Amino acid sequence: MIVVLKPKPTQDEVNAVVEKVRQLGYEPHIIEGEVRTVVAAVGDEMSNASLEALVVLPMVDKVMPVQKRFKLVSRETHPDPTIIKVGDLEIGGDAFHIIAGPCSVESEEQMLSTAQAVRERGGTILRGGAFKPRTSPYDFQGLGEPGLDLLAQAREHTGLPIITEVLRERDTEKIVKVADILQIGARNGMNYALLEVVAMSGKPIFLKRGLAATVEEWLLAAEYIAKKGNRQIILCERGIRTYETATRNTLDLSAVAIAKKETSLPVFVDPSHAAGRLDLVSALSKAAIAVGADGLMVEVHYDPPSALSDIAQQLTPTAFSAFIESISPFIAAAGKKLSVAR
Amino acid sequence: MIVVLKPKPTQDEVNAVVEKVRQLGYEPHIIEGEVRTVVAAVGDEMSNASLEALVVLPMVDKVMPVQKRFKLVSRETHPDPTIIKVGDLEIGGDAFHIIAGPCSVESEEQMLSTAQAVRERGGTILRGGAFKPRTSPYDFQGLGEPGLDLLAQAREHTGLPIITEVLRERDTEKIVKVADILQIGARNGMNYALLEVVAMSGKPIFLKRGLAATVEEWLLAAEYIAKKGNRQIILCERGIRTYETATRNTLDLSAVAIAKKETSLPVFVDPSHAAGRLDLVSALSKAAIAVGADGLMVEVHYDPPSALSDIAQQLTPTAFSAFIESISPFIAAAGKKLSVAR
Amino acid sequence: MIVVLKPKPTQDEVNAVVEKVRQLGYEPHIIEGEVRTVVAAVGDEMSNASLEALVVLPMVDKVMPVQKRFKLVSRETHPDPTIIKVGDLEIGGDAFHIIAGPCSVESEEQMLSTAQAVRERGGTILRGGAFKPRTSPYDFQGLGEPGLDLLAQAREHTGLPIITEVLRERDTEKIVKVADILQIGARNGMNYALLEVVAMSGKPIFLKRGLAATVEEWLLAAEYIAKKGNRQIILCERGIRTYETATRNTLDLSAVAIAKKETSLPVFVDPSHAAGRLDLVSALSKAAIAVGADGLMVEVHYDPPSALSDIAQQLTPTAFSAFIESISPFIAAAGKKLSVAR
Amino acid sequence: MIVVLKPKPTQDEVNAVVEKVRQLGYEPHIIEGEVRTVVAAVGDEMSNASLEALVVLPMVDKVMPVQKRFKLVSRETHPDPTIIKVGDLEIGGDAFHIIAGPCSVESEEQMLSTAQAVRERGGTILRGGAFKPRTSPYDFQGLGEPGLDLLAQAREHTGLPIITEVLRERDTEKIVKVADILQIGARNGMNYALLEVVAMSGKPIFLKRGLAATVEEWLLAAEYIAKKGNRQIILCERGIRTYETATRNTLDLSAVAIAKKETSLPVFVDPSHAAGRLDLVSALSKAAIAVGADGLMVEVHYDPPSALSDIAQQLTPTAFSAFIESISPFIAAAGKKLSVAR
Repeated sequence: MIVVLKPKPTQDEVNAVVEKVRQLGYEPHIIEGEVRTVVAAVGDEMSNASLEALVVLPMVDKVMPVQKRFKLVSRETHPDPTIIKVGDLEIGGDAFHIIAGPCSVESEEQMLSTAQAVRERGGTILRGGAFKPRTSPYDFQGLGEPGLDLLAQAREHTGLPIITEVLRERDTEKIVKVADILQIGARNGMNYALLEVVAMSGKPIFLKRGLAATVEEWLLAAEYIAKKGNRQIILCERGIRTYETATRNTLDLSAVAIAKKETSLPVFVDPSHAAGRLDLVSALSKAAIAVGADGLMVEVHYDPPSALSDIAQQLTPTAFSAFIESISPFIAAAGKKLSVAR
Repeated sequence: MIVVLKPKPTQDEVNAVVEKVRQLGYEPHIIEGEVRTVVAAVGDEMSNASLEALVVLPMVDKVMPVQKRFKLVSRETHPDPTIIKVGDLEIGGDAFHIIAGPCSVESEEQMLSTAQAVRERGGTILRGGAFKPRTSPYDFQGLGEPGLDLLAQAREHTGLPIITEVLRERDTEKIVKVADILQIGARNGMNYALLEVVAMSGKPIFLKRGLAATVEEWLLAAEYIAKKGNRQIILCERGIRTYETATRNTLDLSAVAIAKKETSLPVFVDPSHAAGRLDLVSALSKAAIAVGADGLMVEVHYDPPSALSDIAQQLTPTAFSAFIESISPFIAAAGKKLSVAR
Repeated sequence: MIVVLKPKPTQDEVNAVVEKVRQLGYEPHIIEGEVRTVVAAVGDEMSNASLEALVVLPMVDKVMPVQKRFKLVSRETHPDPTIIKVGDLEIGGDAFHIIAGPCSVESEEQMLSTAQAVRERGGTILRGGAFKPRTSPYDFQGLGEPGLDLLAQAREHTGLPIITEVLRERDTEKIVKVADILQIGARNGMNYALLEVVAMSGKPIFLKRGLAATVEEWLLAAEYIAKKGNRQIILCERGIRTYETATRNTLDLSAVAIAKKETSLPVFVDPSHAAGRLDLVSALSKAAIAVGADGLMVEVHYDPPSALSDIAQQLTPTAFSAFIESISPFIAAAGKKLSVAR
Repeated sequence: MIVVLKPKPTQDEVNAVVEKVRQLGYEPHIIEGEVRTVVAAVGDEMSNASLEALVVLPMVDKVMPVQKRFKLVSRETHPDPTIIKVGDLEIGGDAFHIIAGPCSVESEEQMLSTAQAVRERGGTILRGGAFKPRTSPYDFQGLGEPGLDLLAQAREHTGLPIITEVLRERDTEKIVKVADILQIGARNGMNYALLEVVAMSGKPIFLKRGLAATVEEWLLAAEYIAKKGNRQIILCERGIRTYETATRNTLDLSAVAIAKKETSLPVFVDPSHAAGRLDLVSALSKAAIAVGADGLMVEVHYDPPSALSDIAQQLTPTAFSAFIESISPFIAAAGKKLSVAR
């Protein structure tokens, strides 16, 4: 860490900083600049206490860390691509995967029809929310456990692995019985209690970026999961909160590029929630592929106008086919292959 | 709700919208403008399904709700100030309250010394984190249950009621035994599962605004608590995430003014976390009082440089006394009285 | 416009609103809902006064416009692609263009070497700043007029058309003599005085999105240019200001997709300034192509470490060649052809 | 500056950095940490070239400046309060000033009636826009020069000094003849060309913070003015752009507290534009006073519903009187005195 002192410190002040730095387990190096004096503190920032403490000293101006804060999910620690196996599928390699399905599980007819359409038209993993996080307590909260049963049925009928969101620590056990991948939504992107519980299930975790998380915070959320012994993590960018109102969120594709550089984990993009607009899903998906994503999560519903949530962003089966076709040249340009359900 | 159609719709297209509106339980009124055609849908937006669904129709441009989405916490429903009793204290009336204490519970000495200082120098409620949400899994996560014991001891010694944060659904029961007020932190501001669990404890809830929550989302989070039968809610503004880097977060005092208008709940401000800078705590506290806040939460530590978290923003006992003195004229100007521990 | 009244208005209050609406040139339609009363005001929002005025009436809750605010740059007005001719080049059609060159014009050697490299390796338009907007008055402000001479020389040597930024109304005349395209930078994205002056030059205008402009504000800035009789506008997305610090700005590719839908103007992307990181330029450029951009602006310098500004984001000539190669498959996937200098 | 190298650099790589640092005029100090190697570069960052250049070297991870970038406006350079004289008024001392008047100059009647009301009810400086920056070219752009004449008349009648906004370099001369203070609006907060032109007029400059400017960028904009020999600068916070939609902008009072610490310049707050809501003006003004502002700018109009711009945020004369009364106790609490027109 680098401790920057305020202009013109006295010798006693410099000594006080140096002593504190040493006390906290670092080796201090004083550098007297023309304008500012700086104390470089040598030591591992992950195992020693943070020097941030020093900011309370009156002569200290700022403290700047020099190390990264995540380790288990870093590419430095795991240079090779992390391949996550879900049934026959391998996520994170050369195959490009499309997770598709309705926003919410609503009924047997809806779920089976949609699942069938997803399978036939190019999706390899089926999504569907049984437990839904909704901004208003008056909005539809999902079917709950009966929704899990419908997901199980849909898997049986189509063979597609299932991904569904976990909202409550106490539901994890039930969900684990049905789901092949556990999703953590954007609102829980910093709910570390939940992250630890799902991590311990041993299942692959689909970790959406928190709705105003920095890339570093997103990777540290992944580190929480990895620290519980589970490195089967799929990162998912889904838009961040900005001042722009033309889209629901602002899709941050730079974050995808950075996540691919910093970690070896697979990175997906959810263009449906990012834009909240059906008319942008195809264009943003192409961009996601081009920037290096390993897969997409899109919302497909056999009859969108009848849907109970997120109506504005669900594709019909026909539109889903057109969508797959529209993005195919970009999957090829990216040197990947669209994964197909067997 | 108002449904705006795209320019120059055909009669069939207008009819299709009208029929859908009626199907969803609203009474449609067509208004043909010079440039745009609009369908006004009459009906209660809280009991009927949302018309957002209509956005998927090709001729619909946008759907605009006209009602507010929260009800139980609205001033329309509860016009009189909500007074929350905590021991002898009444929060939300003419008294101005200061919650103070360390960021984290660290040791018996730290807790008892700090609690004593808080009580003697002007705080009426003691804060202290036993379970800490930290961005990095490598940072100090709090003492956990032993921390709860220290909080209980501090209450016994000083008579101050205790507020502490709940992070995990499964910890709620234990915490309820010790805490007089349950705190929900900014990272859990949209963790509705946790909101519902703490609501059911029947204890007063101190609800921090989510780190990028809109005022509406914050009040809807409160609505989640109220819907479980608990209207003992203290709202707390603690800064929002913006592009500005000179402060850790941007304190949004307009949100305090709006929350006071929209609801009758008490509203507090946490200047320590908002700025992340000790040197702004006093100025921001004065502003919070002036804008209409009912109380403050500030961090006080008997020896800040030794603290295990948030070192940059904890006041010493001496600084806390000076702080109280500095804000007193503003409490008087606001027509309030500083609450004092008996 | 739609005027929403507060709950339970009296008949007199409704009448007052109705009269005001009529006075301002609209025809009022009253719709009494179960919960809210709404007055729909029929009339052209572009030619009539705004009803926003009504918000000051005590019984009015909010006023919601239903029309778009731009017209001359809208696709509704000009449905066919706007093709902008610059010498032999046609921008906005099937050709994909790469504007390249140094951040700042620095010296004859730098400019001629870089221009030569740009031409040989795949750029068709040469950029270079003679007048530089810098956040600090102590940073290099550009060579000024001698810089314009160097740009003119570079054009003579390579035949490449020139684009350069206009900062001052009073410099426009001089710059027009040299530049083929006039650039408006992000800091001047809402400097309407300058927009009008450059518009009247009759030259094509390269309009960067303001650093915190909404898509609507960006298109309205274009409307300012169009209203002065100049529809030769190239829009350029260059990242917006958000809380994320991993990149200098957050590239908003959704804005590109929306701009392509709303207008028929060509839309470019500047990945160098968006990210402020050389290591993301290629990935973000691929994404820009995939999302539908008509061209890119990238920074190339014959010797980046010697550059006087924006060092962190300029490509070497060799890196520029590799860059062109890396993006080529995506240009093909997008159904476009890379434009080549003759 | 501090140059942080990537993990495990070779000796040659370290040498390359060291040499570059020396070349750029700094004295390098190598510090080999356990995890990272850092090169501290000693030298004045204001007079030497920036080391940012080094980021292009493959072994460099990041470069961190340690100095502040502004100087002439810093409190270190000018520790005593900067007092700005406008006629009899002294801005920046113990007096608290209220600038009031309509958003736009509209007519003789409007201007004189409003000016009279401002003078009688507690304002000491009259505002009014003759040239208006409007997001849409179809909105009212101000009366222009006739508006300046009306401002001159209003000053003659009331004796109040005049503040008005400058939008165009070429209008500065005309405006200087009428205005006592020149205002730079938020959209021009980074229009350095305009800043330099108005600075050279020698008049006091009222510098609004750019709509998404950081505090540092705002102070650097002031530095542009000071560098032209004009230190008569009044800073004005007017809200920043964030994701929150309940207010037009988010008033950032922390920025006021920081500006007061970092500089000795007077700092004002404009609550009208910050919130865009009349109902928050009083509460936010109280907060602005409490946080340490030297004055306020509020919008007052003798008949707001007839106003041609910013209708939602202009006070009536009666409301203005009530407003002054409501904020008075806070001016006293802050140890200031409300300035009164003689």
